Amino acid sequence: MKSLLACTVILGALAAQARIINVSDHGIAPGKDNTFALNRLLESIGNESGVTLNFPKGTYDFHQDNAAEVYRAVSNHDNGLKRIIFPLFDHKDITIEGNGSLFLMHGRVVPFTLERASGITLKNFSIDWEQSFHAELKCIERDIAKQSAVFECDETLYPNKIDNGMLMFDRMGQWDPIGANMVWDKDTHAPIYNTDRYAVQGWKPNKVSKPGKNKIKLEKCFKKEPPPVGSTLVVYGVHPTSRLCPAIHITNSKNVKIENVTVHDAGGMGLIVERTENIELDGMKVTSNSQRVVSTRADATHFIGCKGLIKVENCVFEHMLDDAINVHGAYVPVVEYLGNNQFLCNISHFQQWGLIFAEPGDRIALMDRSTVLPVSETTVTDIKILNEHRFVLTVAGVPEKLPEIMSVENLTWNPDLEFRNNIVRENRARSILVTTKGKVIIENNYLSSQMHGILIEGDNNKWYESGAVQDVMIRNNEFVNPGYARDNRYPLLASPLFTKDQRMGEGRYHRNITFENNTVRSFNGHLVEARSVDGLKILNNKLIYSDDYPKAEEGETIELEYCNNVEISGNSASGFDHPITIKTEDTENLTIGKNKGFTAKK
Amino acid sequence: MKSLLACTVILGALAAQARIINVSDHGIAPGKDNTFALNRLLESIGNESGVTLNFPKGTYDFHQDNAAEVYRAVSNHDNGLKRIIFPLFDHKDITIEGNGSLFLMHGRVVPFTLERASGITLKNFSIDWEQSFHAELKCIERDIAKQSAVFECDETLYPNKIDNGMLMFDRMGQWDPIGANMVWDKDTHAPIYNTDRYAVQGWKPNKVSKPGKNKIKLEKCFKKEPPPVGSTLVVYGVHPTSRLCPAIHITNSKNVKIENVTVHDAGGMGLIVERTENIELDGMKVTSNSQRVVSTRADATHFIGCKGLIKVENCVFEHMLDDAINVHGAYVPVVEYLGNNQFLCNISHFQQWGLIFAEPGDRIALMDRSTVLPVSETTVTDIKILNEHRFVLTVAGVPEKLPEIMSVENLTWNPDLEFRNNIVRENRARSILVTTKGKVIIENNYLSSQMHGILIEGDNNKWYESGAVQDVMIRNNEFVNPGYARDNRYPLLASPLFTKDQRMGEGRYHRNITFENNTVRSFNGHLVEARSVDGLKILNNKLIYSDDYPKAEEGETIELEYCNNVEISGNSASGFDHPITIKTEDTENLTIGKNKGFTAKK
Repeated sequence: MKSLLACTVILGALAAQARIINVSDHGIAPGKDNTFALNRLLESIGNESGVTLNFPKGTYDFHQDNAAEVYRAVSNHDNGLKRIIFPLFDHKDITIEGNGSLFLMHGRVVPFTLERASGITLKNFSIDWEQSFHAELKCIERDIAKQSAVFECDETLYPNKIDNGMLMFDRMGQWDPIGANMVWDKDTHAPIYNTDRYAVQGWKPNKVSKPGKNKIKLEKCFKKEPPPVGSTLVVYGVHPTSRLCPAIHITNSKNVKIENVTVHDAGGMGLIVERTENIELDGMKVTSNSQRVVSTRADATHFIGCKGLIKVENCVFEHMLDDAINVHGAYVPVVEYLGNNQFLCNISHFQQWGLIFAEPGDRIALMDRSTVLPVSETTVTDIKILNEHRFVLTVAGVPEKLPEIMSVENLTWNPDLEFRNNIVRENRARSILVTTKGKVIIENNYLSSQMHGILIEGDNNKWYESGAVQDVMIRNNEFVNPGYARDNRYPLLASPLFTKDQRMGEGRYHRNITFENNTVRSFNGHLVEARSVDGLKILNNKLIYSDDYPKAEEGETIELEYCNNVEISGNSASGFDHPITIKTEDTENLTIGKNKGFTAKK
Repeated sequence: MKSLLACTVILGALAAQARIINVSDHGIAPGKDNTFALNRLLESIGNESGVTLNFPKGTYDFHQDNAAEVYRAVSNHDNGLKRIIFPLFDHKDITIEGNGSLFLMHGRVVPFTLERASGITLKNFSIDWEQSFHAELKCIERDIAKQSAVFECDETLYPNKIDNGMLMFDRMGQWDPIGANMVWDKDTHAPIYNTDRYAVQGWKPNKVSKPGKNKIKLEKCFKKEPPPVGSTLVVYGVHPTSRLCPAIHITNSKNVKIENVTVHDAGGMGLIVERTENIELDGMKVTSNSQRVVSTRADATHFIGCKGLIKVENCVFEHMLDDAINVHGAYVPVVEYLGNNQFLCNISHFQQWGLIFAEPGDRIALMDRSTVLPVSETTVTDIKILNEHRFVLTVAGVPEKLPEIMSVENLTWNPDLEFRNNIVRENRARSILVTTKGKVIIENNYLSSQMHGILIEGDNNKWYESGAVQDVMIRNNEFVNPGYARDNRYPLLASPLFTKDQRMGEGRYHRNITFENNTVRSFNGHLVEARSVDGLKILNNKLIYSDDYPKAEEGETIELEYCNNVEISGNSASGFDHPITIKTEDTENLTIGKNKGFTAKK
């Protein structure tokens, strides 16, 4: 027995030792399509753990033709058959070491998919595509009176044609109309101030012509006026085929590290993570390459239904067409209580179809959908998936009286979040969205986004993103010109999203949010808007006027509704020539201390 | 040991006994959505064999909402997530007894999927959809001078709208333009004579308006002229979303019987069968319901890569928008010889993507793609599927010299076909397509189709349908007005389909075809066209003039090219006022006996 035990220990030690594979020994090299050879190499590793795939520095091409293919539901994306370049399914303790290499994708592929993987490290490489999932049209001429503009658009980079009067872009196997679009500023390299003004009504046929090679003329299709000369009109297609290819997709996995990885493009998000425990991003960058204004088609990073710790440090997220990070769960409406502790549930948001809502053993809350508040908690004993939309949930117990309209939320899968020392800038939409019951620390970041800085939302009727927060610390961040989309945006907005059929319930929705020691350079003098929060501290923040954008005076500096236990103290405002105000409504236990330059209203 | 053995025998005998389940004992009943209850019942049966699901006679509704869902590649259809009403996966010896019931589908569903099933019998029921996968527009007014027509189209049966000047039809979750379309005759209930004349150019925007409730006016979009008043314009959408839902899909299965089953509609074929051994259709009907002119969106039945016997008797196939039956295999082009007996292969036809071409142990032929002739045979030792398009085939041996362009064909999976006592009529396209190396008997059928009666083709460059036939007997059939699409169609056309890059090789492609004792009532005097056939007998057929359609004089009665060992004898022609001719070219060993009313040409 003793020798057998010893032998096992030795074998265990051997298995834990890293084996380094030089990919060039396996036919993988710059200057050729490496997909086939890479897939064979990954297959040969199988369930061997402790392997490093070492890529000598270079540009490695990966084409779609020989890629592995699996039908995949990908949250916040469009589901479908996915061609995968690095299919890391069930792999353990694998490191992909790029040594500064570029992994250049060709076609409609997902570069990385991790499924039921653990201990995976991705490090020291960049991901880009030869052809982008969006198109960039630089305005070289405009005529405001005639509502027309001429754009320069390189047809080799952004192949396009006029078909039945519609401008269509080749997106590697499909032809997309203009669809979603946005104008970017030539000087700030960010969405232009008040970009909506220049929006192309891209879902309808436009008057379009080609006045010369690489030239496109658009007429009478701009919301208010054609974009300024020198700005770039970015067009990025329509649902449901515009979010097919995230750069990195991770699901049902554990202990993942992404270190010094740069994502230059994606037909979706840079990183989408589902039902994964512990993930660390260190030095990750999402940024456009030198030829393009825009990076990813959607969020830089996005996490749904995770647990453990999400740690994001020393990252740069810029030039995305959506948020830098979003951490949330899912509310799923109940169609019908079937009796016998069984609920027939229907995933409502089309970009959550196929989500694994829960597994046996998970704790869940049953919510009243009219107030978005929980009515009871229980444990899942079985889940039967009927199709991508529907499942039957069997639980340990149900309350005697059920709400008339219900939904369910997973309580077990709520991660902590540490978001520290990161830069978010020059992107469409928000910097941070977070709705998790875990402990959240957002500190020492530079945040300069076009919409809200930090949005703590949660809703049960539109995006179905749960859930209410319980412990959020936001401190020592620098917000620069938050909200230059121009409408009423805040460095921090904390409020559930209600529809007209929903109402505030007996208790508050969010809890324990601290906004402390932040510096906000602002053209509109906004600080915090909050609704239905119990335990809100707004302390020692500095609000400083910035003239980077035209002065704006709409809205209050701090606006509260239906909050409880609020402390506002030690804040200062300087440089504004309009009143810096605090407005509260239906709010209890409010303490307003000294706030330099602030005026409290009722 | 003895008692244990006895016990096993008794248990075996018990298991083999049929258990009859009355579905009404399991919550399945007319007047409600039965999908959920049916799926739970099928699950509960699991791998129990010898079970009959007995449906008391009635109309059973099945909605899509709670249906099982699986991503499915379906040959000759559009692949995708399929909602399945009867998912018979791995089931054994199950009988679905309908007792004359109607299974009424709601939404985009596949009523039956059999996968790895054996001994399944489907009997005594009809399948229909509440809403069809095509639309029918009855012409009530036309103005030839103005090239316009007004149609009546019930908006509840065929929901539609005009969107950006395009007429769009709601196909249960997607909006289809007119797309493919065809005019049907009010008197013959079949595609109208020379239907192409009235074709709508459906892929481009048409001038369309709605002059009243349930009225649609189309202008200046007809190929030659608007369709006659009283005829029905059938419109059925565009690829790749127009063939999503066959009525019955069978794959990787064995010993299936379909008895007295009627299919009234399908968003694809009535029956599509892949890689299945032994299937019998007895008394199957594909026909429109009393409210509609047209039945299935595509073929009534279709078989690819099967083996054993396909037996089709006492069936009626009518009103389909495609052929009654097609039996074939697949040619798959080789992209590259990888060395080590490995071929990288690429399925070229988009409606074969995802096909299981072969499994280890299958015999295959390697073909020269320039002549469509085999160069060697070998056995598959491994198959590695890369994605829906591509796989790597490892074989036991390769010839020393490989052709420059190659494809592969499966030799093991070639079924026999018996097609007997059936009626095919009033459909678009052909009656029968058959290309199998098995023994084929087609006898005692009534065949009256719009294009060729029987097409024995095989091609390696367009549809990639293999293979060359070896033994085909066609006797005692009645062909009535074959080819009223009007162009040059034949009761029998046997010829590989060549493209401009392909050429006849050293040997003939098809072998041993007998066309004997058939009666052909014909408006054009066509009998047989054959190319590259070795062993062709055309014996004792009666060709009788029919005045059902305008007289036509194009083409020869029998036309042969590059054939060998041909006998033409005992045939007769009557009633024609143009010459009934035999024309041969490049044909050896030709015997022309007595043929009454025939003239041989050179």
